Amino acid sequence: MKNYITLSDIDNLENLISEARSLKSKNTVPDLGKGKTLGMLFFNSSLRTRLSTEKAAKLLGMEVMTMNVDKDGWTLEFEDGAVMNSDKAEHIKEAAAVLSQYCDIIAVRAFPGLKNKEKDESEQVLNSFKKYASVPVINLESATGHPLQALTDAITIQELKKKDKPKIVLSWAPHPKALPQSVPNSFTEMMQKLDVEFVITNPEGYDLNPEIRKETRVEHDQEKAFENADFIYVKNWSSYENYGQVLNVEKNWTVNQKKLEPSNNAKVMHCLPVRRNMVIADDVLDSENSIVIHQANNRTFAAQAVLKQLLKDED
Amino acid sequence: MKNYITLSDIDNLENLISEARSLKSKNTVPDLGKGKTLGMLFFNSSLRTRLSTEKAAKLLGMEVMTMNVDKDGWTLEFEDGAVMNSDKAEHIKEAAAVLSQYCDIIAVRAFPGLKNKEKDESEQVLNSFKKYASVPVINLESATGHPLQALTDAITIQELKKKDKPKIVLSWAPHPKALPQSVPNSFTEMMQKLDVEFVITNPEGYDLNPEIRKETRVEHDQEKAFENADFIYVKNWSSYENYGQVLNVEKNWTVNQKKLEPSNNAKVMHCLPVRRNMVIADDVLDSENSIVIHQANNRTFAAQAVLKQLLKDED
Amino acid sequence: MKNYITLSDIDNLENLISEARSLKSKNTVPDLGKGKTLGMLFFNSSLRTRLSTEKAAKLLGMEVMTMNVDKDGWTLEFEDGAVMNSDKAEHIKEAAAVLSQYCDIIAVRAFPGLKNKEKDESEQVLNSFKKYASVPVINLESATGHPLQALTDAITIQELKKKDKPKIVLSWAPHPKALPQSVPNSFTEMMQKLDVEFVITNPEGYDLNPEIRKETRVEHDQEKAFENADFIYVKNWSSYENYGQVLNVEKNWTVNQKKLEPSNNAKVMHCLPVRRNMVIADDVLDSENSIVIHQANNRTFAAQAVLKQLLKDED
Repeated sequence: MKNYITLSDIDNLENLISEARSLKSKNTVPDLGKGKTLGMLFFNSSLRTRLSTEKAAKLLGMEVMTMNVDKDGWTLEFEDGAVMNSDKAEHIKEAAAVLSQYCDIIAVRAFPGLKNKEKDESEQVLNSFKKYASVPVINLESATGHPLQALTDAITIQELKKKDKPKIVLSWAPHPKALPQSVPNSFTEMMQKLDVEFVITNPEGYDLNPEIRKETRVEHDQEKAFENADFIYVKNWSSYENYGQVLNVEKNWTVNQKKLEPSNNAKVMHCLPVRRNMVIADDVLDSENSIVIHQANNRTFAAQAVLKQLLKDED
Repeated sequence: MKNYITLSDIDNLENLISEARSLKSKNTVPDLGKGKTLGMLFFNSSLRTRLSTEKAAKLLGMEVMTMNVDKDGWTLEFEDGAVMNSDKAEHIKEAAAVLSQYCDIIAVRAFPGLKNKEKDESEQVLNSFKKYASVPVINLESATGHPLQALTDAITIQELKKKDKPKIVLSWAPHPKALPQSVPNSFTEMMQKLDVEFVITNPEGYDLNPEIRKETRVEHDQEKAFENADFIYVKNWSSYENYGQVLNVEKNWTVNQKKLEPSNNAKVMHCLPVRRNMVIADDVLDSENSIVIHQANNRTFAAQAVLKQLLKDED
Repeated sequence: MKNYITLSDIDNLENLISEARSLKSKNTVPDLGKGKTLGMLFFNSSLRTRLSTEKAAKLLGMEVMTMNVDKDGWTLEFEDGAVMNSDKAEHIKEAAAVLSQYCDIIAVRAFPGLKNKEKDESEQVLNSFKKYASVPVINLESATGHPLQALTDAITIQELKKKDKPKIVLSWAPHPKALPQSVPNSFTEMMQKLDVEFVITNPEGYDLNPEIRKETRVEHDQEKAFENADFIYVKNWSSYENYGQVLNVEKNWTVNQKKLEPSNNAKVMHCLPVRRNMVIADDVLDSENSIVIHQANNRTFAAQAVLKQLLKDED
């Protein structure tokens, strides 16, 4: 593995999931990371990603240097050939090249603006780091994907599934703000790689990018989608067709206990942070159906497996 | 010890003070903290608490992850049953449960709003962490108490006292802003546990919460209170009766050399940061009467003793 | 070496450069820094300095505690005798004394205001730390100097020079904002210490402080200055005569390939961050003439050599 920017960077998913589960259960291998430095760059807020990735790196013996880029450092210019006569103080070409000398792996979080589909899909920030860095780059959630979360989700499903081919439903849920499609995109791509029955349910107008959805069944009737579901992954996202918009439809998509009735006593997942009683009701989050805390714990081991693989393949 | 949230969490104060003094003088026990992580969460500014607690944890071999919660992470919702349709992105239930998986001990700083006495006294932030975290919680100064500071103060007095039962005076002093009662509250509670003669002096209108003060003598004449004092702890606080108000009375309570004359060449303490020439005059802070720097150094060893106890009792 | 605040703190420059180059090529000496803590205090933004100094300290086995002073801590008062009745919560006297107890070395970044020459030249922040701290102080770029950068520059020139006495030109270049003279000041002082032919070129009105410039030749014709240059160090600075002003003259001083023609295929240096196509054109930065990335890498080893020397001389 050279980078971990999209799920396609994974050489062998089965091995990576096994590695994460093994790291979770046994002692660590601190020698591998000794003398190596992880640089974490945040263009946006983070709690789980920040702390679980830092913890994962330290469990491997690495040093970690964290920066809130725009607040602690310099505003970066990403345009090639720009005349830098305004507010951008440093070009990504220099920043990425210099950071590659101070860090052995660079991890970057950069959310989409949700204003301009083409710009967001170009993944300018992450791809610029990939282009100009000489060390591996990890995606800590970018404009269109969150592959560390998707790996976490795969680990969690593998751990907790009770049948060979469980039914997994990804359900849209309401939210007051316009949110990225990164998490549902990567979850969809991950489910397409696993031996599961996968269905997406969302109101009309919220269908995900068809290039990511591909042949995955989309069911606009949430109740029908939940029938016999073993896992229900709840998540809000803004419209892809009306790019970045909140359509103000279907307020009754909040997932509560009543909605779980047609399911196979489904385990409920969410990447967190979750808006209680908007996205998922208290009666689900506070019940045994919820596995969101268990799932969040696996963030550490997903990150650890990815870091370990990158370190091994660098040597 | 299961948490360190109030002084009542201390099982054996004498032992804890001895432990801190012993940690100060001898080498550390880095194995105890090895592989353990302290998560420090700041809802407010900090210099001494941040650095001394980080240092204490590292002296025990722990890893430390620090977050300015609202700036780096997500704004937290603390109300049970809230419909999270506005600015709060994550509920304390999830945040505390997730952090308990990434951290072995969670330390939290959350000041009072000083607008609503009942709300402040409910200690919502700290008590929510205590309720929903599954690991020990340390109070890094909360709405109504600062027990790490009080332990520091006890250590300092034990170290520097020249008689068995010294006279200790807690003196109010002027300040341009409304400050919490956390430090004087915890200092008062700590003095009540030690074998000292303890007097509080403050202008009328500034009496501390009677439930904390209890039988402690309050003297509204500062000069009289200072007579034969061995230690004078200077600190501003806002009114408890007129909750959170600055009453704009008694500007002449600044502690200067002249005021120390009736004392027993008193050692002057303050938790820092101290406003020079408002709270304490230069002629005291720059004199040998001041032990504020010595006192600040003990923050590290107070934190180390508490962390060590929590780690030991967790095993 | 007791501090590293100006270049005059260096006891033996040749040895220090050798030490840095040796640290760069061989393994580290982690025992020297074990149990020691570097406190880094930022009053201004930083990327390279923050990360390279943190990395250098960790390569020596030190722990690092970083604070954005004004954002994470308390606003500091630097005036002696001030009545602290307004926005400053803590006096440098206490802050420096307390930090000296938590840290074995203190490193400080504090830029000039560029409004008041006398105030900037007094180096109030840095000199206050030097005065009140009881541990060594490192300058991470102050109002008038950046000696860690200058040491980096000396290392880089020693590494890459092809003749015994190379010609080095420091060239002013345009920039939309008023920048400090710290980097050109320290670079000038460093060049005066090395066996090089050193010329400064800048538009009229931009001559550096004569007390720093001393006998160094200043050439107001950039083309003439570049003749046979082996190294060209490009950097913007604001006017010293019209203190802190951008004079809006000579927009054609941007360094591009055409300007390098009269040089001896000069290597182009810059401390970074660099404004592309304002200060240096893409055709230089993306060419083999540019050594800015190589130069930035040496920041780590300059910092490591300084930290090592301070630790050794403290023992």
